[in-house]
Amino acid sequence: MNKIDVLDKGFIALVDYMGSDLSVVNAARISFNKQKEHLDESDEKLIEYLVNHEHLSPFRHQYVTFHVKAPIFVFRQWMKHKIGSDFNEISGRYTNLSGVEYYVPDIFRKQHKDNKQGSEGIIDDNTHAQLLLSISCENAVKSYNDLIALGVCREQARCVLPLNMYSEVYWTVSLQAAAHFVRLRKDVHAQKEIQDYAVAVEDILTTIYPLSLKYLANKA
Amino acid sequence: MNKIDVLDKGFIALVDYMGSDLSVVNAARISFNKQKEHLDESDEKLIEYLVNHEHLSPFRHQYVTFHVKAPIFVFRQWMKHKIGSDFNEISGRYTNLSGVEYYVPDIFRKQHKDNKQGSEGIIDDNTHAQLLLSISCENAVKSYNDLIALGVCREQARCVLPLNMYSEVYWTVSLQAAAHFVRLRKDVHAQKEIQDYAVAVEDILTTIYPLSLKYLANKA
Amino acid sequence: MNKIDVLDKGFIALVDYMGSDLSVVNAARISFNKQKEHLDESDEKLIEYLVNHEHLSPFRHQYVTFHVKAPIFVFRQWMKHKIGSDFNEISGRYTNLSGVEYYVPDIFRKQHKDNKQGSEGIIDDNTHAQLLLSISCENAVKSYNDLIALGVCREQARCVLPLNMYSEVYWTVSLQAAAHFVRLRKDVHAQKEIQDYAVAVEDILTTIYPLSLKYLANKA
Amino acid sequence: MNKIDVLDKGFIALVDYMGSDLSVVNAARISFNKQKEHLDESDEKLIEYLVNHEHLSPFRHQYVTFHVKAPIFVFRQWMKHKIGSDFNEISGRYTNLSGVEYYVPDIFRKQHKDNKQGSEGIIDDNTHAQLLLSISCENAVKSYNDLIALGVCREQARCVLPLNMYSEVYWTVSLQAAAHFVRLRKDVHAQKEIQDYAVAVEDILTTIYPLSLKYLANKA
Repeated sequence: MNKIDVLDKGFIALVDYMGSDLSVVNAARISFNKQKEHLDESDEKLIEYLVNHEHLSPFRHQYVTFHVKAPIFVFRQWMKHKIGSDFNEISGRYTNLSGVEYYVPDIFRKQHKDNKQGSEGIIDDNTHAQLLLSISCENAVKSYNDLIALGVCREQARCVLPLNMYSEVYWTVSLQAAAHFVRLRKDVHAQKEIQDYAVAVEDILTTIYPLSLKYLANKA
Repeated sequence: MNKIDVLDKGFIALVDYMGSDLSVVNAARISFNKQKEHLDESDEKLIEYLVNHEHLSPFRHQYVTFHVKAPIFVFRQWMKHKIGSDFNEISGRYTNLSGVEYYVPDIFRKQHKDNKQGSEGIIDDNTHAQLLLSISCENAVKSYNDLIALGVCREQARCVLPLNMYSEVYWTVSLQAAAHFVRLRKDVHAQKEIQDYAVAVEDILTTIYPLSLKYLANKA
Repeated sequence: MNKIDVLDKGFIALVDYMGSDLSVVNAARISFNKQKEHLDESDEKLIEYLVNHEHLSPFRHQYVTFHVKAPIFVFRQWMKHKIGSDFNEISGRYTNLSGVEYYVPDIFRKQHKDNKQGSEGIIDDNTHAQLLLSISCENAVKSYNDLIALGVCREQARCVLPLNMYSEVYWTVSLQAAAHFVRLRKDVHAQKEIQDYAVAVEDILTTIYPLSLKYLANKA
Repeated sequence: MNKIDVLDKGFIALVDYMGSDLSVVNAARISFNKQKEHLDESDEKLIEYLVNHEHLSPFRHQYVTFHVKAPIFVFRQWMKHKIGSDFNEISGRYTNLSGVEYYVPDIFRKQHKDNKQGSEGIIDDNTHAQLLLSISCENAVKSYNDLIALGVCREQARCVLPLNMYSEVYWTVSLQAAAHFVRLRKDVHAQKEIQDYAVAVEDILTTIYPLSLKYLANKA
């Protein structure tokens, strides 16, 4: 459960974390000037109570660092979640990106008829679309290499690279903020690609903070 | 001074703002339980004092909204500045991007010899690089249109578009955070393209908050 | 509606603001690359839609500055709302606090029987409690003055002053964050004293952003 | 080094932490798409470089939770540091505060002659001031108990308690934000009482992140 593959070449891996369901309970019990050594049966009720009454500050003393590989268009959605989140990312100014991979969808979805920002089903000629996208991306990488060969600096040459290029980030996030990300991004209105990452984030969080996730996942 | 052209097709425009050098002074004087109706000569010294002693909270009661058109790779650097900043952006899920423009550099800079993330000078065959980049981007837009024609949803089709596509955002930012952006991004170590935007942001801020910018620009 | 008295000696006053229901709609429409000059009938539906689908970023391009006078124990609850909020406050290090007023409740509420953090009804001997509290606070102010007379610095002398001393702050807050404050703090579970301020904040916001408040007040 | 006494009855204790100097280096090296298993000699130079060039994001993947006991007037300064910080505190609505202790200064400092917000030296009659303060606080606690005895709810009765009452909080903070707190609050312009806490925070951080603190302490 420490590393989960997502999409065709991406992943999310647990790097480090701090705290537990017990630390949630202890952060809450500081209000009453009490602390516990071990979780007991009453603590699940306390966690449920905290979530239901929107006392969410006890869920901000737990932090998780993930290593994530995802396409740039996914990270552009992801990084809109800025509260309680910090990111460090591969730099296209430092690093030659010619070896970086790009995302090829297994399934190309049709534009949704009713929801202007949604998608549904699968297009008729999926193979054609895959080929078209792959050729387009290979050409872009070739253009990048050609610009580098002309002596163009990396920071300008990367301009031609497509939004489905994979990037990698370190993401450190509080438990509350991570649960909020999960709730909003595994929702059916989110883009399918980021839904897949949100489900993986939830799976990892659930192994670390099972009681908290049980209640936060629908309310954070 | 309300709209400044930046790069070949971008701009930054002032949409709205709140506060003034006087509101900085009044936010500071609440500490002494005093308020003023008009700026006087002593206020420049107070502003200088606040900046030099890192009492920056009085510069967080002024907010500015900008409308910015810039390439995506520039926005990816810009949006790392998340404290005191909010962004709303054109969505490639809602909007057909085939008409969106892309950035063509006037000058392609060489990779810097010493600074791994820097650039310097101009390459020998600038015209060749411009042509190469333009063809690459036109091909990417053609691929986007072809995918749309195959029935692919906008949110997936946009994958093939390049990082120099122009996007547009509403950016609302506190005076302190805007001055911090200016200081870090007009620095010679920043990428030249975002330096150009930082200079334009500074020009607009200076017309609104002249005394504050005079001191904040080097210290925020 | 620009200044509302709260409690026995407090107030909340509007100092400045930026944006409108129209700026909410325009921040949202940047997603579709469209802008409007005037609100029309469809905009209320858009605002309702944004709130119901938790697309709250368009409500972060509006900012309001309030001047607030409230007891310190109220500000201690208030300042827990730190996202999208900035505060500047009277400093007891700079300012002699001997003239500062203190809060005397009209009504002393009984400890709630069921809710450990709540209150209800009115105690039997309200006049006695008022007298007791007033004497206690007057003695504290006298001790403060005695310490000052002994040559003690203000920053230490203030130690003896009570939590119901009035303070004054400049509070600058985004529309979303202000609406979130209103929703949580006018709730019956909040302390009655801060409920009174939350109602006053809502009244002022409603005059500036009537459509936004109509929907945000229950969901922000 | 896990618990340090501060002032007459306060303390700061390490509850939990995440990351290390190595995690700083790895968060930075994600920019070059590289990772390390162990620190080596070059890493101190990298950390120095990051600090000197204000690349501080790698110092936001480390978090520390402290348990702090301090007077309320100290926490009121402390909680102004809101970026990268979260707090949970004893609630005077839940908890009967009659047993809570108050701060009695060893030394009462004189008002500073030049610096309106500063202090210096020691007053002539220190013992008198200690007695005066102690009596004032004991009277306030007595008033609190009398109000409780009259049936007044805890949330109102606490109004009469003084600003030097000790409170306790859980404080979770990023390495960067903690170092920023240390730099600003161990400065001679800060109030002596919070300087003492800042020094203790620095001592604990230095045991966990020695290289980072060495450079951050003067620049964060």
